[in-house]
Amino acid sequence: MPGIRRMVLDVLKPHYPSIVEFSKKLSVLPGVSGVNLSLYEVDQQTETIKITIEGDDLDYEEIKQSIDNLGAVIHSIDEIVAGHKLVEEVETLQER
Amino acid sequence: MPGIRRMVLDVLKPHYPSIVEFSKKLSVLPGVSGVNLSLYEVDQQTETIKITIEGDDLDYEEIKQSIDNLGAVIHSIDEIVAGHKLVEEVETLQER
Amino acid sequence: MPGIRRMVLDVLKPHYPSIVEFSKKLSVLPGVSGVNLSLYEVDQQTETIKITIEGDDLDYEEIKQSIDNLGAVIHSIDEIVAGHKLVEEVETLQER
Amino acid sequence: MPGIRRMVLDVLKPHYPSIVEFSKKLSVLPGVSGVNLSLYEVDQQTETIKITIEGDDLDYEEIKQSIDNLGAVIHSIDEIVAGHKLVEEVETLQER
Amino acid sequence: MPGIRRMVLDVLKPHYPSIVEFSKKLSVLPGVSGVNLSLYEVDQQTETIKITIEGDDLDYEEIKQSIDNLGAVIHSIDEIVAGHKLVEEVETLQER
Amino acid sequence: MPGIRRMVLDVLKPHYPSIVEFSKKLSVLPGVSGVNLSLYEVDQQTETIKITIEGDDLDYEEIKQSIDNLGAVIHSIDEIVAGHKLVEEVETLQER
Amino acid sequence: MPGIRRMVLDVLKPHYPSIVEFSKKLSVLPGVSGVNLSLYEVDQQTETIKITIEGDDLDYEEIKQSIDNLGAVIHSIDEIVAGHKLVEEVETLQER
Repeated sequence: MPGIRRMVLDVLKPHYPSIVEFSKKLSVLPGVSGVNLSLYEVDQQTETIKITIEGDDLDYEEIKQSIDNLGAVIHSIDEIVAGHKLVEEVETLQER
Repeated sequence: MPGIRRMVLDVLKPHYPSIVEFSKKLSVLPGVSGVNLSLYEVDQQTETIKITIEGDDLDYEEIKQSIDNLGAVIHSIDEIVAGHKLVEEVETLQER
Repeated sequence: MPGIRRMVLDVLKPHYPSIVEFSKKLSVLPGVSGVNLSLYEVDQQTETIKITIEGDDLDYEEIKQSIDNLGAVIHSIDEIVAGHKLVEEVETLQER
Repeated sequence: MPGIRRMVLDVLKPHYPSIVEFSKKLSVLPGVSGVNLSLYEVDQQTETIKITIEGDDLDYEEIKQSIDNLGAVIHSIDEIVAGHKLVEEVETLQER
Repeated sequence: MPGIRRMVLDVLKPHYPSIVEFSKKLSVLPGVSGVNLSLYEVDQQTETIKITIEGDDLDYEEIKQSIDNLGAVIHSIDEIVAGHKLVEEVETLQER
Repeated sequence: MPGIRRMVLDVLKPHYPSIVEFSKKLSVLPGVSGVNLSLYEVDQQTETIKITIEGDDLDYEEIKQSIDNLGAVIHSIDEIVAGHKLVEEVETLQER
Repeated sequence: MPGIRRMVLDVLKPHYPSIVEFSKKLSVLPGVSGVNLSLYEVDQQTETIKITIEGDDLDYEEIKQSIDNLGAVIHSIDEIVAGHKLVEEVETLQER
């Protein structure tokens, strides 16, 4: 069964709970083998983070629910990788 | 049998179905070993994405049909790789 | 027998046949192990593409003939690699 | 047990104790397999450093306490990696 | 016996013979394991190319003679590697 | 026993002794497996160099003493790596 | 016995003898496993080159003598690596 293997999410969150707490909640969801949370930008009340989640057969709705429960909101889904093979995005000639 | 091993497509789509839904449809097509969907740019009604599909003997017409059925349109075919070996594009001296 | 192992060609073509059709024709020529066709630029009637072909003992005249038959023209031969070893071009100090 | 595998911290510290002393204290905390301390910027009374800590099941509170005890303060938590697999952050198309 | 293992040459040539012909002549010289010919720039009567030749105990005079016989001239020898080990040039701090 | 595995030092030195002499003295200190001395900048009386030292359980005081004895002074300690694992510094999103 | 494993030298030389001749002389010196000579810049009477020499226990005085005998002069010693391990220079945060 292929399924989703990587998601990259742009997320707006309040300062607390911290990304330490986020990492603990997200890394134990079913199908998740690891998460990376990186800080884009800090504002007065909020911060914007990038969440990269890898695993087998990731469940977007369940991940979204966990993020909601932590008081945060997904701004955009920036990358989805699915299938037997983890395919990397290829830079095209026009992007150079 | 060689056939097409990678396609990189520039696609315009409405916001829904999301790229999560796209990835589920495209990753189970015959010959597809994996897909990567990455977000280029978001507009009010639409978004532009880059779809990278890898596999053995990919069927362009079938992939195009699936994308059409999801309400999206292929703007350009940015890269095609075919043959026994997956050949990467080589940067030329004039491009530097 | 050494022979030519890689060719990088800058090619002007009409929009049809598409690079999907090009890849199918070129990847089955004798000596070809794989081809990569990447889109440089699209104009109203034509498009410019980069063709990277790898294999053993590639036959330039046969490849040129196939490209002609598809209604396209080679603008320049940007790189040729020949011999027992696939030698990569080395960046010089003056190019930095 | 997954737990936190990497933390990247932006830290403000007085000139003494030096980062040599910091490295000795932090590298022997439970679960820590290695630390990297790099100097961002030196001011008259203080300096800003980046601390990268890797290990299994890192304890943020204990690390924070050690940094406090050395007279320094964490400005921001810039990256957290957790789970069975050490997931690297993926560059998105919008960041290019 | 060490000898020369790589030469990088900046060469001015007329448009014909093409770099396809150059590659066939140069790749069969004694000691040559492979050649890479890349196009720098095209002018009205001439073109400038970069020739990278690798092998064991390359003979500069013989290679120069072959290039002369093809109607071209070496503008500069941009890199020479010699010895038992193929040593790559190392970027220095002043070049950054 | 973990200990310090890498030090990167910014050092001001007179022109003599040369970095050849420096490398001979520093590479034979206890715990040192190798040193890299690179020239940042040359002034009339002095030069600024970057010293990268790797080993097991490096002794900062002993290294500093050796540098002092050679008539040079450490301007800043730019990186320290300690622990069982040699942890590389990770680029953060804000640094891009 | 550790000794010097790599030297990077900035050298001013007349046009003749060429770097082909230089490579033949330097690559056979005791302890030398390979040399790379790269052209920085050409002037009317002279040229500036970068010489990278690798080996075990390189003898700076002997190498300098050979370069002198070829009518050239060392402008600066840009990098020295010594010890059991070939340590690469590490980019610091201030250099970014």
